[in-house]
Amino acid sequence: MTKLFTLSVDTLGSETELNDILKGLNQSLLRNLNYKFQLYGPEKIIKKKIENYKRLLKVTEIIDCDSYITMEDKPSDIVKSKKTSSMHLAIKSVTENLSDAVLSFGNTGALMSLSVLNIKTLKGIKRPAIASIWPNMKGESVVLDLGANTKLDSRYLIDNSILGASLASILFKIDNPSIGLLNVGKEDNKGKEEIKLASDCLKDLSQNFIVNYYGYIEGNDISTGRTNVVVTDGFTGNISLKTAEGTAKLFQSHLEDAFKSSILSKMGYFLSSLAMKSVRDRLDPRVHNCGILMGLNSLAVKCHGHSEFRGVSYAADIIYSLLDNNVNKKISDYVSEMHSKLTN
Amino acid sequence: MTKLFTLSVDTLGSETELNDILKGLNQSLLRNLNYKFQLYGPEKIIKKKIENYKRLLKVTEIIDCDSYITMEDKPSDIVKSKKTSSMHLAIKSVTENLSDAVLSFGNTGALMSLSVLNIKTLKGIKRPAIASIWPNMKGESVVLDLGANTKLDSRYLIDNSILGASLASILFKIDNPSIGLLNVGKEDNKGKEEIKLASDCLKDLSQNFIVNYYGYIEGNDISTGRTNVVVTDGFTGNISLKTAEGTAKLFQSHLEDAFKSSILSKMGYFLSSLAMKSVRDRLDPRVHNCGILMGLNSLAVKCHGHSEFRGVSYAADIIYSLLDNNVNKKISDYVSEMHSKLTN
Repeated sequence: MTKLFTLSVDTLGSETELNDILKGLNQSLLRNLNYKFQLYGPEKIIKKKIENYKRLLKVTEIIDCDSYITMEDKPSDIVKSKKTSSMHLAIKSVTENLSDAVLSFGNTGALMSLSVLNIKTLKGIKRPAIASIWPNMKGESVVLDLGANTKLDSRYLIDNSILGASLASILFKIDNPSIGLLNVGKEDNKGKEEIKLASDCLKDLSQNFIVNYYGYIEGNDISTGRTNVVVTDGFTGNISLKTAEGTAKLFQSHLEDAFKSSILSKMGYFLSSLAMKSVRDRLDPRVHNCGILMGLNSLAVKCHGHSEFRGVSYAADIIYSLLDNNVNKKISDYVSEMHSKLTN
Repeated sequence: MTKLFTLSVDTLGSETELNDILKGLNQSLLRNLNYKFQLYGPEKIIKKKIENYKRLLKVTEIIDCDSYITMEDKPSDIVKSKKTSSMHLAIKSVTENLSDAVLSFGNTGALMSLSVLNIKTLKGIKRPAIASIWPNMKGESVVLDLGANTKLDSRYLIDNSILGASLASILFKIDNPSIGLLNVGKEDNKGKEEIKLASDCLKDLSQNFIVNYYGYIEGNDISTGRTNVVVTDGFTGNISLKTAEGTAKLFQSHLEDAFKSSILSKMGYFLSSLAMKSVRDRLDPRVHNCGILMGLNSLAVKCHGHSEFRGVSYAADIIYSLLDNNVNKKISDYVSEMHSKLTN
């Protein structure tokens, strides 16, 4: 029997255009035939725009709402108020088993707080982390945390290692994903106390074959693909990811300027434009911009607040592939297995 | 009267080839005619290789030494032992006024410890920071700290703001360089306690026109050039810089692969190779890889452990320009002016 998956999508509270959301979901639907959608937002407007996407229209339920959480709303205020906001309703649908996962482009802190409160964390996981899939020289790696917990805490780093390894094993179909702990140097004496503590614990786990811990890695190792999983705290991860995004944009902008600088290089640009496009697609931060909230009982994914249709469709694909692989059950099993080994 | 500047160069303890050091210095000498050099390393080998660089040979004194500090040596051990190492002797030359600045490619922690101990920090500065000059969409910015102090401390962040602003004002010839504090969001409630404290203090200083504080910035703002100075702690800065370097390399590697993918794109690559080269030069981490130790009584600069001649010549150019602008006097004046305003 073919499994059907329902994704509830919060369409409000960000700069992402409704059209990009619809076009992205429609594209993903071409690849993932058993997708269904719930769209949370103003019914009248969605109904009008979705007319252009016949295929999407057939498998979509629109849940009318106007209220939304803004980027400025503080998580602490949102939990109490705005119970009818698009984000709140989309999350509730998951907790009530009316859908399998939630996708939002809005306020990350609010999505995190509402998810923790409603979907709740897996047994043994204290706080969720935000994971992202990063391109590297060898393929891709899982990097986390990208901003859920800005506090540096060895317990979070160990939880993140377990969550990241379970995600990588599902996504990349490998048995013992290697885990690297992001630090300012590879030597044992480098870094902060919390990181050393986490490293010692991961070494123990590794010696007992519970995880496959590589050791400390440095910022440039993310791109070389030194390990399948890159673990860091949410403060460092958030700033690093955004710095890398900025660098990619800077490179692209300089490249485009340079190509316009002479007739020969303009011709060169024209001749190589297809090659250029493939690089842009592979490294475009507009595509690789979804954050997977890890450690919850159901899947919640946050896309960049200013996503384009490619980013939406990439995120929808990832979610489908995770659901299709029974990600929550697997991660939950993995986490409880790790924890039972930890306590033995 | 033309001023002569002497740079003492530690040639040992890294993977940087002696030939790259000599070629780089020789290139910088073509642009900066009043440079003199002291090279610390094995006299016999240096004498043989420097024969190829007649111009450099004329203005260079070789100080024979074989002992050097390795990348594995711990800073705490080095301070006591290895008093005849190339790095130690190069630093001593600065403290004894036999040279104006020191350049090393070796162990960063050792260079920092030996510099603090011998050259000593400026009055009012608790710990030096490592600053780097980063390319951005508008030109360049000063980013610090890149790894001197991995501890997050509001006092260091404020010191770094003052040091960074003074460096930017000299390098970019601007009066009130704007300062941004790196954080995980732009809103006042974002980030850690130490950062909020530093931000409040910088706001006060800004209201009294002591500094030009912009506010919080995010990782991607480094590349857009939102502010002239980017302030962060050494842990976050080190990992971000290395992540950005890795991203630039990844982009370049994918681009080269893509250009080889078809005959048309190969032709395109050939036609646009000059344009490509200019981008590589502008964004090449092998060029922009020098860390300026800020807050010391004399200038000390650390280049990447695996530098190429372009990186060496870029670093030598920066040092010359800073010396020519009387950087130590200016920074010292700037810092004491800030501190006197702070205490008033």
